[in-house]
Amino acid sequence: MAKRKSLKSDSCPVARSLDVIGDRWSLLIIRDAFDGMRRFGEFQKSLGVARNILADRLQTLVAEGILEVAPASDGTAYQEYLLSAKGEGLFTVVVGLRQWGEKYLFGKGEAFSRMLESASGKPVQKIELRSREGRLLGPADTVVRKIDGMP
Amino acid sequence: MAKRKSLKSDSCPVARSLDVIGDRWSLLIIRDAFDGMRRFGEFQKSLGVARNILADRLQTLVAEGILEVAPASDGTAYQEYLLSAKGEGLFTVVVGLRQWGEKYLFGKGEAFSRMLESASGKPVQKIELRSREGRLLGPADTVVRKIDGMP
Repeated sequence: MAKRKSLKSDSCPVARSLDVIGDRWSLLIIRDAFDGMRRFGEFQKSLGVARNILADRLQTLVAEGILEVAPASDGTAYQEYLLSAKGEGLFTVVVGLRQWGEKYLFGKGEAFSRMLESASGKPVQKIELRSREGRLLGPADTVVRKIDGMP
Repeated sequence: MAKRKSLKSDSCPVARSLDVIGDRWSLLIIRDAFDGMRRFGEFQKSLGVARNILADRLQTLVAEGILEVAPASDGTAYQEYLLSAKGEGLFTVVVGLRQWGEKYLFGKGEAFSRMLESASGKPVQKIELRSREGRLLGPADTVVRKIDGMP
């Protein structure tokens, strides 16, 4: 893989986020963690990814404070990976990817996993961006104000 | 780059989405398109990415129906890349990445670009997931129902 330009000091929050989690495996690991997976073997089975790549991504996610390492909840010698508050902050990103995929990437009649509210068993709403006063906002209703010195 | 396992037929919409746009450059191009950029040179200047990588990602985004190619709006020979409805569907994903980055990836007092509602000039709300009845939902309030045959 070519060495990539770091976006760590970029003044755009989207760029910094992608510097940390802009990798399909990282986001799939985070998805699995939201689905309750905690152990190396669980992620490996779910993702079918090479062990060295998985180990690398888990290590990065821990170093970034997105996952935290904890002793196994059942008292065995395994270690477990749990989402930190920072990791849980990615919930709407994962849900956004899910909802976009549901809408645009499945053929008619093709089945897909669904996110439901646990308490009611009902599908959740589509996530939306709203103004302070509650107006629904699309791309044309917003502007990004760059800071001085930004390209 | 190692040949990666395709997630194109995965029954999880998150996986399919990441198969298409799970790459930092693709999402940064989409971010720039939301910010009004349309031309190869604009993306190149903004991202500082190698031309061959940019050309490859633009081609993929067009092939996936996320960007559409159009003649230049000023009558010159340039071609322009515009977000399709499918591309605009990624708005909440980009905003989610932005809001997560704002919260977790900037030091105290460090400046970042901000998203505002155009009409009011005010910051937008944080995007949220809600139940059908309007309850605010966090990761612990939801469950993913896998379909038969899913791992």
